[in-house]
Parts: sequence; C-alpha cells; structure tokens
Amino acid sequence: MASASLLTPPPVPVELYVTNREKLLKSSRQHLADSARPLKGIVLLQGGDERTRYDTDHLELFRQESYFAYLFGVIEPGFFGAIDIASGKSILFAPKLPSDYAVWSGEIKPLSYFKEKYAVSMAYYTDEIAAILHEQYQELEKPLLFLLRGLNTDSNNFSVPANFEGIDTFEIDLNTLHPILTECRVVKSELELALIQFANDISSEAHVQVMKNIKAGMKEYQLESLFLHHTYMYGGCRHCSYTCICATGENSAVLHYGHAAAPNDRTLEDGDMALFDMGAEYQFYASDITCSFPVNGKFTNDQSLIYNAVLKAHDSVISVMKPGINWVEMHKLAEKTILESLTEGSVLVGDVKDMIVEHLGAVFMPHGLGHFLGIDTHDPGGYLQGLERPKEPGLNSLRTVRNLKEGMVITVEPGCYFIDALLDPALENSKTSKFFNVKALNRFRGFGGVRIESDVLVTANGCRNMSNCPRETPEIEAVMAGGPWPIVKKSAAAE
Amino acid sequence: MASASLLTPPPVPVELYVTNREKLLKSSRQHLADSARPLKGIVLLQGGDERTRYDTDHLELFRQESYFAYLFGVIEPGFFGAIDIASGKSILFAPKLPSDYAVWSGEIKPLSYFKEKYAVSMAYYTDEIAAILHEQYQELEKPLLFLLRGLNTDSNNFSVPANFEGIDTFEIDLNTLHPILTECRVVKSELELALIQFANDISSEAHVQVMKNIKAGMKEYQLESLFLHHTYMYGGCRHCSYTCICATGENSAVLHYGHAAAPNDRTLEDGDMALFDMGAEYQFYASDITCSFPVNGKFTNDQSLIYNAVLKAHDSVISVMKPGINWVEMHKLAEKTILESLTEGSVLVGDVKDMIVEHLGAVFMPHGLGHFLGIDTHDPGGYLQGLERPKEPGLNSLRTVRNLKEGMVITVEPGCYFIDALLDPALENSKTSKFFNVKALNRFRGFGGVRIESDVLVTANGCRNMSNCPRETPEIEAVMAGGPWPIVKKSAAAE
Repeated sequence: MASASLLTPPPVPVELYVTNREKLLKSSRQHLADSARPLKGIVLLQGGDERTRYDTDHLELFRQESYFAYLFGVIEPGFFGAIDIASGKSILFAPKLPSDYAVWSGEIKPLSYFKEKYAVSMAYYTDEIAAILHEQYQELEKPLLFLLRGLNTDSNNFSVPANFEGIDTFEIDLNTLHPILTECRVVKSELELALIQFANDISSEAHVQVMKNIKAGMKEYQLESLFLHHTYMYGGCRHCSYTCICATGENSAVLHYGHAAAPNDRTLEDGDMALFDMGAEYQFYASDITCSFPVNGKFTNDQSLIYNAVLKAHDSVISVMKPGINWVEMHKLAEKTILESLTEGSVLVGDVKDMIVEHLGAVFMPHGLGHFLGIDTHDPGGYLQGLERPKEPGLNSLRTVRNLKEGMVITVEPGCYFIDALLDPALENSKTSKFFNVKALNRFRGFGGVRIESDVLVTANGCRNMSNCPRETPEIEAVMAGGPWPIVKKSAAAE
Repeated sequence: MASASLLTPPPVPVELYVTNREKLLKSSRQHLADSARPLKGIVLLQGGDERTRYDTDHLELFRQESYFAYLFGVIEPGFFGAIDIASGKSILFAPKLPSDYAVWSGEIKPLSYFKEKYAVSMAYYTDEIAAILHEQYQELEKPLLFLLRGLNTDSNNFSVPANFEGIDTFEIDLNTLHPILTECRVVKSELELALIQFANDISSEAHVQVMKNIKAGMKEYQLESLFLHHTYMYGGCRHCSYTCICATGENSAVLHYGHAAAPNDRTLEDGDMALFDMGAEYQFYASDITCSFPVNGKFTNDQSLIYNAVLKAHDSVISVMKPGINWVEMHKLAEKTILESLTEGSVLVGDVKDMIVEHLGAVFMPHGLGHFLGIDTHDPGGYLQGLERPKEPGLNSLRTVRNLKEGMVITVEPGCYFIDALLDPALENSKTSKFFNVKALNRFRGFGGVRIESDVLVTANGCRNMSNCPRETPEIEAVMAGGPWPIVKKSAAAE
C-alpha cells in the first residue's frame, strides 16, 4: 500500500513554451543567416489528433505529439501551430468544435482562451490556416512554409509534415526545420529541467514505495499498480514515460519486458532479483529510472556480485561525465567496469583488454549505456546530421554517439544480464569461450539481470543525478526493512 | 487509500474462445444454408498490430482488436486467424519474430505454444497465409474468404478487412461475415458472463473504495488513481473499459468528461456532487458503472431530489426488463420517470404527458438509456440490419432500439443533468418554456448532474444486475461514513 508523499505537483509556467519558441526562432534565424537565405518563412506544425480503438468509438487517451508539445504545450487534440520567422509571432489554430461538444465533452472555449492559455500572439480556427498565413505574407504569391519532416533515429520512422486544405498555395521546405528543432530539444532549459526533476522526484519516491511493499507471492503487475498509483495520486502523472517493466527472476534478463505479450504477470518468488524500470511523465516531461533489488530484501553473495558490478559502472560513468566527454567512451567505460567486476568475481577469466577486443561486454550488456531524455523517453537528436551509428556489438545499440553538452539530460543505465540467446553463441565461439568460468557462469543461468538507471543532467563542470533512489546495497536493504528514505530536493544537493 | 479486496482474478478458460468459434460456425452454416449457398469458405480475421506514438519508438500498450479477441483471445500483436466453414478447423498465423526479440522482448515461442495456448487446430506463420489456405482448398483455384467489413454504428467507422500478401489469389466476400459475427457477440455465453461479472465485481468494489476515501480538497484525478489502482492491484485489470469520468460539481453535467482536454483536474469542494463513471476491463471484457454521490457524504434535499429521480428511473427500468421488451420503451420509461420526479419536486410544472410530446426528457437526459456491453464498452450490434436510428431528441442518441433477448448485457444508465446549452434553448422555446419553474430551476444551475449506471444481464424471465454498488441514499451515506459494503457474489444473489 502506498503511503503519503512529500511532494506536490508544481505549476507549469507557460513561459516554458514561450522560451522554447524563442529558442527555435533564434536557431532558425541563425541557420538562415549562415546559409545566406532570407530571414523569412513560417514554421508550421500539426498537433496530434484523438484516435479511436480500431473501428470502435473507444477513444484512446490523447497525448500530444512531442515536437508540438515542445513549442506550444497544447494538451487538446486537433491543433496546428505556426511561428513567423520574420516577426517572431506565434499563431495557434484550434479545431472548430460541433455544438454538441458542449453537451458531451465540455465547454467550447473561445479562441481568446487558447491565445491566453498558451501565450501565443494570435489564435484562429484550423479551417482558416491558408487564409491567415497568406495574410501574413501579402507580398508573396507563394509564402514559404517550414514543415517538420525528418528521421527519428530510434524508431526509423519519419515525422509526418503538417497538411491542411490550401497547402498547395505555399512553397514548402521539408529539410530545414527538423534538425534545427531537434537540436533545440537536446539542450534543456531551466523550466524544462524543473519538470524533468519533478518527474524524477515522484518516480524515485514511487520506486521506494515499491521496494517497501514488495514480497514473494505478489504478481509483478501489483508493483506496477503501486508505482502508477503513487505517481498519479501524489504526482498528478496521468501518463508514464513508457510501459512499466516489472521483471522478476529470469524475466529481468528481458530488456523490454512488460509489453502486452509479456504483461508483468509472473508470481514473485523468494530469492528472485527484481528489475523495475518505471518512470512517470509529468506535463509531457519524462523520467526513466531503474532499480534492481532482491525481492526478499537481502542480497545473496551472487546477487551482490552482479549488482555491485553494475553499480560500479553506473557510478564510474557519473563520476567522469562533463561537457566534452564522448558518450561512446562512457559506454566503453561501463562495459570495462562490468567485465572487470565479473573477472574479479571469477565468472570470467583472462585479461579484460582481450575481452574488450572480442566485444564480450555486449554479451552481458547488449543495450546502449543511455539515451537523451525529455518530452520523449528516447528524446531525439542522438545522431546529429553527419554522425553514424557504430557497427560493433553493444555500441550499435547506442542511441547517441555525441559529445556531452551542458543542459543535456541523458540516462545512465548500465546492466548485466544472463541471456541464453547471447551466452550460448559466446560459449560456442572459440574467440570468446575461453573467457568464461563455465561452472561459475552456470550458477547465473536463470538469474535474470540487473540494471541501474538514473537520469543525469550535464552541468557546466560535471553532472547532476536527478534520480534519487537507494543505490548502495546496504541502503536498499535498510529501506526494504522499513527504514526511511529521505527525498532530498536535488536542487539543494547539486554538485 | 485503497484497502484490501475480497476478490481474486479468476482464470480464463480457453474454452471461451472455442465456444465463440463454434457459435460463429453454427451461425455461418445456418446463414449459408438459408441462402442456399455452399457450406464452404474460410473466415479470415486480422488481429491488431502494435503501434508507436507518432514518429517515435514509444510503444503504445497493445490491446487486441475486439472481434479478433472474441474468436481467438490472442493477447499478442500481429496475428491472423482463420476458421474453415466446412471442416470447422481453426488456424492461427503468428508473426515471425526477429532473433533479437529474444534479447529485447522475451522468449520466441514456437508455433506449438500458440496452438496449445489458444486451442486452435493448427498454427503457422503469417508469411504462409496464402500457401496454407490454398492447401485447405486444393480443389478450387480461387477459394472463398469471408473477411470482416461492416459499420460500427457507434463510431460510424468501418472495420478494416484482413489483408495479406497473395490475397488476390482468393475470392473475397466482404458482406456476409460482419452481421453474423456481430450478432454472435450480442448474446453472451456463460463463460463470457463470468468475466463480465468479475469486471463488475472488482469495479463495484473499487467504486466503494472511492466513496470511502473521497473528500473536499482532493483532485478529481486522485479518485481516478484510486479506482485504477484497486482494479489493477486486486483485479489484475491493466486496461479500463474507457477513460475514467471523474466529474465533480458542474463538470458532472459533461457527459464524457475526463478526456485529455478535460482531464479530471478540478479540486473537489464541500457541497459538490460527484459523478464517477468508471469500469475496469478484465481479460478483454468490460464493465461500465456510474456512481453519483455528494463529496461530503451527506445528501442535501436538492441533491436527494435529483438523485432519487434518477434512481427511480434506474430501478423502474430494471424491474420490467425481460426478453421481448423493447429498448426504446425503456428509454421512454426512464425519461417519464425523471420528468414525473422533477414535477413532484416542483422543478417542472404541468402535465408530464405534454412534456413528453415536446421531448422535454432529452433536455435533462440527452444521452441514450444504455448500450450493449461486452468486449467493447459500446458493444456492437445495436442496430441489426434493417433497424433505423430514431430521429427524436434523446432517442436519436440510443445505441440500440432492439427488443431484449436472453443473454444480452446492456447498461441501464439514466441521468439527469443541468446543462446550460440545453436549458437555455428550452427556456426560450415557447413550446417548452411553460414547463419550467424558473426560480426552482435556477437553484440547479451549476449543480451538474446525476447518472446511475449498472450493467444488466437479460435472463430467461427477467434480468440480473451485475453491478453491486450502494444505490439508495441511506446506503451511500452509511458507506461513506465508514460502514461496510458487503460484496455479495452476484451468482449467489441471482434472480
């Protein structure tokens, strides 16, 4: 049962979106100037639409498209938004609602309501887009629209550019906006950081509640329920950043467990490790936190061995993160740290340098070390134009290969898993089989895995961990035995 | 804070889907025989696919398409299912998963796993559909496929027929299957009823938890969180049947409050009425329950007046429901009962018969009395081919106009709301203005509304209320004051 919280959901200042729009304007003008292009044109984005489930009238809970949320913060479906590069003016276009909306869905708000709520210069209806935009550019027959089209390097999907009646009366630029707007999202403002911090605070607190209430005999989904309830009840978080991964026992070796076909439905057993990767979304902004711990609250020696290997990687990376550091190097540092610990623990034998040459790290940590975090859990911008995804095992899963910059928020989430589908080929491969102490390794078949994940802000001189969960094994055991876990406000604990 | 539950999620026997398929086979053969068509052809349905949020890799939690769920119960995305009319054999086609699925998403199950899990005759991969189906019909060059295409009369959307590589080598029938399969879903089997009953039991219990924990100063969404937590934690219900409507004060006059643009975010005040329309989905099967009560736990005279008007309508309908009764008549009975109570309470003046001629009931209850409930909250089949939607106010919102049949589950949800957008025109209309006691009516401006909703099974001789919430005002006040609410198993309390 969740107990009360120390937290209160903070208000969201509309200046957050004003600031984001100003940042885009500044970047766009700079880009156009650098390309010797005229400082004009209109950025136009289409917000998301409400959808029904298949052919039914079951409405899925609407969540705004992330680029649109970044610039306008609009929670309602069916909007368009425009920003005029020359004047800096912003326009929201609201859908015209049928009169029976007032009966079924609530008061029909006037345009002035949206103009004020989202602090834009003007508000019109979506059936006026072409007319209004032409008014802004009376001197041109075909004014220029910058639409959003570009690759999401995590999904390999392309964003869908805005479309509206009369779009053929405009000149369209599909290439300029996406990289500029994406780069704006990579470096977070103070106002954005406050929301990411709150999402972290309430999620950290909820993870602690889960630790305090877990016991053998429960179902994995009951811990998911506790987490969701704590973050919604006390944090006002109606959405999670992603489907909760509540993996216990051997399920903890399934990196993205918890989806519909593996729905957190195992019964917990005494002696299991738990790997809970859960993060609430607060007012569009994500958190993404993983805690690993024994279901019964006491680490065995083997559990400590793997856990501390991962914790050491987590802490090592955070201890050196700062602007200029390359993320690929951080991934390699995490891999090396884990391999060293496994060697010290006699699960592996031989020279860690040789293991690295053979990419042995990717057998135990097949995913990337971490990813940008923001309005999306896997926030875009990991592969700036010109950057290529590495080919090597493990590194090829990296969601970014960039150098760190102040204001980036990135997850640090090393893991160590015992996955038959990776171990068996490595044992059969003559180049890697020699590194395994097979007898020791066999103790860990079915063990599952450990992941420790924090959301880390890159600061001017280092970094700051925005997550606040028990991490050291004595801390975890104390909290699970009923000890207190003070949620220290991270702003006071900044490095 | 939710307290423990008396309930345990029941197992779901795979016979449920076997029975559903047998029912479809029987209906299809009967229909073909009646039409003097050969008893052959293959029913082919395409299950739902997992989707990402916009262009990102954020996976939305998959929920199977309802017709597919009805016949096969498959929780995994990407399947097709076939039923051979002649032999009765059923086939599932599973997607071939990439080898790294084992690392990211879990064990890759063999076809035999799905064959056994879903009790089908055969299982193959989706890239074999054309080849396998041709094997079944070696004597024909172009075997006949019955695909699902038809209108959902609640959404006005059409179901999308299955599509696969090689479909052009088959003869396609798009008209036969939809009405037959839809009609199968209208009358529930005992196995289906057991799941709907559990969804009702856990949701009823959760409503009681909400009543016990509500107080002024809370946010509406905190009660949503309590409900979601109770139904997931103790009922294993990961999905709700629809977005929770947690409306208080004047929001309770917004029939479908709670969506993204009206997200249950009001702060509760002493003196408010609450209208909570919330139902959990258990293993695909829905519940849909509304409780209305004063936030502070004590009805005022005005609140009692409106509440009892609605309760009387609710009870009157349930007291006469049985096979053969027409649903339009039930709607009219509810309207009449409410108008009579409002007249007795001096909110209205004049002869109720005259009010009915002027459709005054629809001013206070603009929605239909209820709808079929099953795998969808608004279960299909409300307008059997040949039935037309009425034109009159109120009646035109009815989701069915059918005669009741044994085995139908239908919601009984009368309501009485004070909606300015409907009251103002009625007051300006000379035909209706005379019925209002304006002074009394003005007491109820901003009152919101009351809805009482139960899920009712039509039995051989009458009906059975599957929902079990406090309904009488003294019961509600006692429960909200901390009194017990025994969840009597409805199977023991059947009429």
